[in-house]
This record gives sequence, C-alpha cells and structure tokens, in this order.
Amino acid sequence: MIVRDDVDDPSAGFGQVLVEVKACGICGSDLHFAKHGSTMVELIEQMRGAPNLGVPVVNLHRDVFMGHEFAAEVLEVGPDTAGPPAGTLVTSVPIMLSTTGIQDLAYTNELPAGYSERMLLSAPLVQTVPNGLDARRAALTEPMAVGLHAVNRSGIVPGEGAVVIGCGPVGIAVIAALALRGIEPIVAADFSPMRRTLASHMGAHHVVDPSGDDVFDAWAEKGGTSQLVVFEAVGVPGVIDSALRSAPTRTRIVVVGVCMGGDQVTPFWGIAKELSVQFVLGYDLTEFSDTLRAIAEGAIDVAPMITGEVGLDGVAGAFEDLGHPDRHCKILVTA
Amino acid sequence: MIVRDDVDDPSAGFGQVLVEVKACGICGSDLHFAKHGSTMVELIEQMRGAPNLGVPVVNLHRDVFMGHEFAAEVLEVGPDTAGPPAGTLVTSVPIMLSTTGIQDLAYTNELPAGYSERMLLSAPLVQTVPNGLDARRAALTEPMAVGLHAVNRSGIVPGEGAVVIGCGPVGIAVIAALALRGIEPIVAADFSPMRRTLASHMGAHHVVDPSGDDVFDAWAEKGGTSQLVVFEAVGVPGVIDSALRSAPTRTRIVVVGVCMGGDQVTPFWGIAKELSVQFVLGYDLTEFSDTLRAIAEGAIDVAPMITGEVGLDGVAGAFEDLGHPDRHCKILVTA
Repeated sequence: MIVRDDVDDPSAGFGQVLVEVKACGICGSDLHFAKHGSTMVELIEQMRGAPNLGVPVVNLHRDVFMGHEFAAEVLEVGPDTAGPPAGTLVTSVPIMLSTTGIQDLAYTNELPAGYSERMLLSAPLVQTVPNGLDARRAALTEPMAVGLHAVNRSGIVPGEGAVVIGCGPVGIAVIAALALRGIEPIVAADFSPMRRTLASHMGAHHVVDPSGDDVFDAWAEKGGTSQLVVFEAVGVPGVIDSALRSAPTRTRIVVVGVCMGGDQVTPFWGIAKELSVQFVLGYDLTEFSDTLRAIAEGAIDVAPMITGEVGLDGVAGAFEDLGHPDRHCKILVTA
Repeated sequence: MIVRDDVDDPSAGFGQVLVEVKACGICGSDLHFAKHGSTMVELIEQMRGAPNLGVPVVNLHRDVFMGHEFAAEVLEVGPDTAGPPAGTLVTSVPIMLSTTGIQDLAYTNELPAGYSERMLLSAPLVQTVPNGLDARRAALTEPMAVGLHAVNRSGIVPGEGAVVIGCGPVGIAVIAALALRGIEPIVAADFSPMRRTLASHMGAHHVVDPSGDDVFDAWAEKGGTSQLVVFEAVGVPGVIDSALRSAPTRTRIVVVGVCMGGDQVTPFWGIAKELSVQFVLGYDLTEFSDTLRAIAEGAIDVAPMITGEVGLDGVAGAFEDLGHPDRHCKILVTA
C-alpha cells in the first residue's frame, strides 16, 4: 500500500504551487488505512447522504499516495498564479482545488502526497509558515487542528470540564486545544506512562492509568459537579459504550477516535442519562490557520510530541514502530 | 407483574391529595417493562453517574404498580395542605415528593399508580385541568409532553426539517410538537397504514411505508437541502445504525425510542458525516404544563390517538391488543 516508487516529477500548473516536502507526520489514519483500507472503502460505499465530503474513495488495487501532515518549501509557482516566492516555508490543508472539483491530497491514486520528495499544492490554500517556525513543528499544524475542531464542535466553554480518553496524537491535540481555551479540569487517561507524561505537559491537570484507575472516578473526584464533556480519542470498539455506562447525566461525548467496523452500544444508558454523542471529523480552513498561528506564537508547544524522525526510506519501519505507544507519539518523515 | 389486587384505600397525608383515577393511558414503557423488566433493572444496576435520575429501581419479586399517564378527580386534600377542592379534575407528573426524597409514581412497589381506582398525588405538583377538557384527553398530557421534550432538546428551529421514524404514541407526540412549532417538512415513516394516517392527521407533511420506500429518499425529495433532524421513535436494534448510514451530513439524530439491551452501530458513518446522536428521556414541569395547555386550548387534538378504552379488568387484555399496531395507538383505562 505504501508508495515507495519513482514517479515523474510533477510540475506546477495554473493555480498550483510545486513544493519540496521538508517534514511530514505519520498519522494514525494512515496506520488505520494501511490495516483497514478495504473496510473503509466498503463502509464508504455503503454510506449515503454524503455527496461531497472529501472522504477518500480510492482504488486499492493501484498505488495509494499518503501523507497529509506536511510542511514544505516552495520550488515553483504555476503560470499566471499568485503564490509565495521560491524558498518560502509553507503548509496547506491536504486538498487540491481544480476546475472539476475538490480532490484529497492523501489516500489518492492521482497526486503525490506528503510522503514524497515533491508535491503540488493549491495556490489559494497555501499558508506561509510565520514567525520563523521550523518545518518539523509546522508539520504538526494538521493533527493539532483536528483537536481544535473537536473542541470547537463540542461547544465546551470555561466552567465546564473535560475527560480525554486516549492520549495518542489526537487526544494530545484535544488536550492542547482545551488547555488553550482555559478548560479546567482536564482529566486524561492512557495506558502508556510516556503518553500520560506528555498529556500533563500539554495541559492535562490530572492523568489516569486505566489499568488501575477509572477515569470517571477521577473525574468525580477532580471535576466535582461541573458539566462534563468527554472526548473519545481511542477509536477501538467498546470505548463509546463504556462512556455511556459511566458518564454523568447530560454529559456530551465527542467521538474523535475512528473506530472501524461495528461497535456495540447500550442505548438505554444514553437515554436514562440524556447523554449526547457528537461524531467529529477534520477541521475547517479557519481552524487550520488558527492552529498554525498558535504553534508559531508558542501558545501550543508541539516539540515534545515529536518522538522520532525518519527519511522516506524509513516510512515502513516507522509504521511498525508506531504500534508501540510507550515509545512514540508522532514520527516525522523529514527530508 | 400487573397489579390487580385489593389494597388498603390510601389516605391523604400532609402535602398529598387523594384522587380517583378517571383515565389512565397504557404506555409503551409499561409494555417494555412487562417484557424486559429484569433487563431494565440489570442495566440500571450496571449504570453509573446517575445518582438521582428518577429511574425506576424496583423489586421485581414483589407486586409492581404501573400507570403514569392519568387524569383524576380530587377526593380529599391532606391536612394543612393547599390543594384544589374535591371534584376538581387534575393531572400531575408521576412523581411523589416527600421529606425523604422523590419517588416515582409508577414502576414502584410502594405507592398505587394510575392503574388503580384511587391514588395519592403530591399537592405542589397537581395541575388543574383547564378549559373543561375531559379526563380522557387530559390523560394524554404525559405522553405528549415526551414529544415536546424531545423536540425542545433537539434544538430544532423553523427552517429545519424533520424525519420521524416510527409513528407509535411517541412518534405521534413528536410530530404534534414539531407541527406546533411550525417545522416543515415533517416526513414520517411507519409500517402501519393506520399509524401513517394518524401521523398525517397530527401534522406530518409526508408519510412513508418503509416496506416499499426509504424515508431518507423521501426526505431528499421533500426536504431538499434543509438541515435535517431525525427522531428515532421505534426503539428496536438497528434503527440508530440505519440512520447513521443514510442521514445527510451533520444531521442531528434524536433517540426517543427506548431500545433495550445492546445495539450495533457503525461509528465510521457518524464520523464521516459529523452526525450527532442525542438521547432524550421524559420532560420537565414546564413542558408538562405547556402540553396540558396546548391540548386544553385545542392546539393539539389528541382525540384521534385514543383507539380503545377498557376498565381496570381489561388492562391485561389491552397489553395484548397493543401488540397490533394496525389497530391501536393509545388505549385508555377509564373508570
């Protein structure tokens, strides 16, 4: 599935910018896709009501380009196109605009994505990395925007508290966005000591090891009677049901973790306590720029999240390494 | 389970009103409880985070009083207690206040409920039935309040449209509340022709027989691109997942149907379309009074919902009859 191949060097057309990728994060979605790609494509085929979601519909029998968390240096701006001068460090939402529609810049058979030496971006979507921020940190804009979006969609406001279940990159991004908003307390749970330490560093006020302690007991102790918002950032079967069972009355549960396939829930618990479950995905353009600015201005320090770096040759090995949550949060592919 | 027994006539204590039940509706929850009572008690025992929900915790090895949709005539007001004079037609939320806490007036081993000749009400909660409304219609206040509450909790506003899946008493109550709020279109689905006719009468703009047509196809045709709110008023496994699969992007799904036991869902569909699922239960005191007033003033005509009447002797038989949705919506037990 992972493309490690020689393809023709792309060249920038009208409305496009050719860039050299400097850093690209490996995302949990990529691991999911490598493992569950066919399930994902099946579920998308069965799904209705989503004409233009930007959800990947991809031919798994052909090579698939991945890598959607990138920072890159401008090589060339297309003809009759406004764009930053060569040498500028930029990032972008992983989307390509064209006269025929919108195309994802990842999980695609068509266009090189972030795990490439060079790729094309859409000039109107290119954002210059401000404040001298380096490419490694700028590459974290995309995953951190996912956290900001989840927090925005939850409607959480200061005075309310949060439980974050799972402190992988998504959970950490949620914690960072909650901390920036002044939410307190933030109670986070993860089996990995390394991830719990990272969660504290990023703004969690209290961390819990679920192998010994229950995160809702910890919430009851630390959060008192505040309105609770739960962020499910694990994405394995059973986590939603466990939140339905244990969350206090009228808790809002936000599902950011991507659970593939079926999951068992007990609606009665949701009904008896009037819970809500909000599923969220991605971010919008404003959330992406807000996140880039927050990182560049130092309001969010993403450096401790970067636990590994590999070259393009090391992507396959990094996919393996990311199976060990005790050692890694975010591995970057750097040039 | 159904109490048909001679018990001592209750007498009104301080803060209580003794009433003679004139009409009491048979609720789907009663049927659920008769069938799944032990599952419900088990799920409540497993559930956490809900200290004082008013959810029934009842001893199934003793007789259980039921009947929580009643209108009744005042016989006697307790000592040193303010209450309407004898002969006044009243109704109440099915709750008894006491110095030791709040007790449900249904699914209880302790106090006679609506399937009795006489019962006690809590004086501060008693509401006089206004406008000469008869006891049969006044008894519909409680189930109709469930619909108003679901609509309130959904946050639906004019300009948005609704799909109502299931046109039993709960679905019909939702349709009535939506129509009163000016929501358009309301697209409703039920297998029963009688229930579809009733749905139209109560305000649905378009009805669908799910054995031949898909309610989301009908929505696409009638609702266009309006924001959609789906009300799940069936309460059997699979309905929530089917809504996740077919509902348009960012649809809000409100679960009013009470599905017992486990249910299978596909979180991926919720995530890919950023759907939300809001579970709802019951109503508050204001919603109960608002509903009583709407019925008494003729804003909601509940008469066509009453499809049968039995005496106290006929409750067991009526439980049987309600298994045939083609013949019945609401059966009243009348004195």
